[in-house]
Amino acid sequence: MALTHFDAKGDAHMVDVSDKDITSRIAVAEGHIKMQRETFDIITEGRAKKGDVLGVARLAGIMAAKRTADLIPLCHPLPITKVSVDLEPDETLPGIRITATVKTTGQTGVEMEALTAASTAALTVYDMSKAVDKSMEIGGIRVMLKDGGKSGRYEASE
Amino acid sequence: MALTHFDAKGDAHMVDVSDKDITSRIAVAEGHIKMQRETFDIITEGRAKKGDVLGVARLAGIMAAKRTADLIPLCHPLPITKVSVDLEPDETLPGIRITATVKTTGQTGVEMEALTAASTAALTVYDMSKAVDKSMEIGGIRVMLKDGGKSGRYEASE
Amino acid sequence: MALTHFDAKGDAHMVDVSDKDITSRIAVAEGHIKMQRETFDIITEGRAKKGDVLGVARLAGIMAAKRTADLIPLCHPLPITKVSVDLEPDETLPGIRITATVKTTGQTGVEMEALTAASTAALTVYDMSKAVDKSMEIGGIRVMLKDGGKSGRYEASE
Amino acid sequence: MALTHFDAKGDAHMVDVSDKDITSRIAVAEGHIKMQRETFDIITEGRAKKGDVLGVARLAGIMAAKRTADLIPLCHPLPITKVSVDLEPDETLPGIRITATVKTTGQTGVEMEALTAASTAALTVYDMSKAVDKSMEIGGIRVMLKDGGKSGRYEASE
Amino acid sequence: MALTHFDAKGDAHMVDVSDKDITSRIAVAEGHIKMQRETFDIITEGRAKKGDVLGVARLAGIMAAKRTADLIPLCHPLPITKVSVDLEPDETLPGIRITATVKTTGQTGVEMEALTAASTAALTVYDMSKAVDKSMEIGGIRVMLKDGGKSGRYEASE
Amino acid sequence: MALTHFDAKGDAHMVDVSDKDITSRIAVAEGHIKMQRETFDIITEGRAKKGDVLGVARLAGIMAAKRTADLIPLCHPLPITKVSVDLEPDETLPGIRITATVKTTGQTGVEMEALTAASTAALTVYDMSKAVDKSMEIGGIRVMLKDGGKSGRYEASE
Repeated sequence: MALTHFDAKGDAHMVDVSDKDITSRIAVAEGHIKMQRETFDIITEGRAKKGDVLGVARLAGIMAAKRTADLIPLCHPLPITKVSVDLEPDETLPGIRITATVKTTGQTGVEMEALTAASTAALTVYDMSKAVDKSMEIGGIRVMLKDGGKSGRYEASE
Repeated sequence: MALTHFDAKGDAHMVDVSDKDITSRIAVAEGHIKMQRETFDIITEGRAKKGDVLGVARLAGIMAAKRTADLIPLCHPLPITKVSVDLEPDETLPGIRITATVKTTGQTGVEMEALTAASTAALTVYDMSKAVDKSMEIGGIRVMLKDGGKSGRYEASE
Repeated sequence: MALTHFDAKGDAHMVDVSDKDITSRIAVAEGHIKMQRETFDIITEGRAKKGDVLGVARLAGIMAAKRTADLIPLCHPLPITKVSVDLEPDETLPGIRITATVKTTGQTGVEMEALTAASTAALTVYDMSKAVDKSMEIGGIRVMLKDGGKSGRYEASE
Repeated sequence: MALTHFDAKGDAHMVDVSDKDITSRIAVAEGHIKMQRETFDIITEGRAKKGDVLGVARLAGIMAAKRTADLIPLCHPLPITKVSVDLEPDETLPGIRITATVKTTGQTGVEMEALTAASTAALTVYDMSKAVDKSMEIGGIRVMLKDGGKSGRYEASE
Repeated sequence: MALTHFDAKGDAHMVDVSDKDITSRIAVAEGHIKMQRETFDIITEGRAKKGDVLGVARLAGIMAAKRTADLIPLCHPLPITKVSVDLEPDETLPGIRITATVKTTGQTGVEMEALTAASTAALTVYDMSKAVDKSMEIGGIRVMLKDGGKSGRYEASE
Repeated sequence: MALTHFDAKGDAHMVDVSDKDITSRIAVAEGHIKMQRETFDIITEGRAKKGDVLGVARLAGIMAAKRTADLIPLCHPLPITKVSVDLEPDETLPGIRITATVKTTGQTGVEMEALTAASTAALTVYDMSKAVDKSMEIGGIRVMLKDGGKSGRYEASE
């Protein structure tokens, strides 16, 4: 099996998708950011009154999905047709669980857009909370679902 | 302790750093991407002859550091003076360990730039290897070192 | 009636347009910038010999239309097929009247692109003339026409 | 009096500010968006439970301030040190009043950044509410205060 | 024969391509950068062990193709479906010969994308080698092939 | 002599300029675009009445200078303090000669900004004239002057 992002000489290129069908495609990615209990409490209480960390992170994730082809060198630009980013506090981490869903009608998949959205939402939670906690850690960034292209449906085994 | 990215009403704002000193600042962030053994072998062998996944990911990380203020809503734009991104294969994961170092001469820290560089390098490894392995997982994204500002030196505990 | 940019929980998302038809769409927006008589004279005379303020503003408007999805958080990226921006001096303001027309072949409308083009053209007139007049005021930014989608034709009432 | 953005031949250029002092600078711009009473009610009620239009518009304004030099052709890039955008419902319009404040430590003023933030916040309110009201109108975009450079303090007259 | 980027009044606009067919399009552009013999030797030897100048320039060219509509004012945004950039050392210059190939499935051609990729790859070679040679010169940037639209196939004469 | 953009292992990095002095720096780059006589006549006549190709190209060059660090992977972001781009018709080519001048007050030079401005202005002339002439060729892109840093003054030999 070979890495498709390189040609026969081993040089990087953006893969030719000209002949792929334009189909409806969807990808779901997830991730999380772990933090200290106190930080978790500030963020989750704050949602109501002191400042909406999760609302800002959600927007950052949505906007980042649109910048994916600018950030990932060999990624194709795509007309995204839907992005949603959910951030759910999880007391057992403690921290925030993030799920990003992206759809397109195009010639290639949107898993990079979903991963970029989830990562950027997590980075934004870090940015907005770092005054109180520098030890937060982002992890579990992975693709949960990808569907709609020739290579068929992929679901993470979980 | 309060989240500085919100004002007294709880509205998000970009914090005023006008009165902070212009000092030399550094931040180091790390992260990793775990993969199947076969994928690891393809990437690490490929470095020499079939295509330089780590070289592409390194560049993507460096360039992403420069885009940080575009991606993270309340992050200040900063004149970055140095970025390096190291990607080291680690057979025990198996996967790639990433370390990003960013410096500036400015009025606020560069830990978001270092985290963004590390995350984007990891996402790029995913993009370039996803044809052979969709189950890769990005984790351990965190700040290892931050120094040079008024809040003093921070080092991750382990 | 509800705001479509929020889901059932009240969280912002980029609306799913995957199932909308790809149709020809057009939008026209207008606006103006009012200024002192002396400023008006400098700009309108200058067009011929001292510097083409309106030409620069026109280009800025056209280029801004292409950046709309970067600026407006929940706006879909769209393959714009035409942009024109007209700037007409109006002695009765005195000032410049701006009309922006945008077309696409896509799954959602282009009124945000037209509004962004008109606004940015007006901001550019301000920038280029602010050395002589800081009191200029931008107003009347609104959609005049939108056509081509499922929701039918909209024309401003007057 | 002459337009500084053109040289002696009438060609546009980015003015040389190399010899200007690096000083603390501030600018405040304002604007508003008028809407139908029903739209006003949906937005202001929604803030609490159905979706935070003003929170999204605030973030869009803050992020747009950082993109000003990308949008306005002859505008200098500047290290912004603070941005805040306030959006206040005003029943008498009815609509939303917007005030943007930007600071920098640099060689030129930030009134274009403040105007861009206010305009983009208003455009975002339009985007998020257009499903219920296409007749909204943006106006009153102007500079209220500019201070900190060689040309002295400017305050709007009323 | 007339310049299509201006309307009847002589004002610049982005040409209306709404009614053009969506077809497969390809463009190939080439260029070169000439340098001193010693610089040539450092770059070509370095490829193997001291640093991959051509690999970095290749990526820069690929990424620049995706930014074309941001850089060229009246250029339409397009969903690029393939980009490759080849850089071949040519001892007879001495220097590097660059060939960029871009494909799309769209309503207008991609020669600007191919030219932008070739130019940016050449600029990146300059950037990476300028510590040893400031006299390098970029030239021969031109379109070799364009095919797939209504205006038919174009091939450079030699 | 070594390529500074690679570290001891041969990995690309953005060079550390943290310890360099903040000084006034200037760079001048030039280039040209050759075309058929008929194209030359259309552009030079058009300047007065049918459309200002050179005015659009000048703006594109100025704006591109501000995007240099986005395009050139290892280039430092810099607070540009001046950009001018001159385009002069030269009947002997026949074609347009381009000179770009960029200044900054910063820790590293601006020759890449000047080269990027000149290249993008030339590309824009191509874009605006390609409907009448696809055989135009861009060349002679080189640095004429660089001054203001530790490495001293550089002037092209002829």
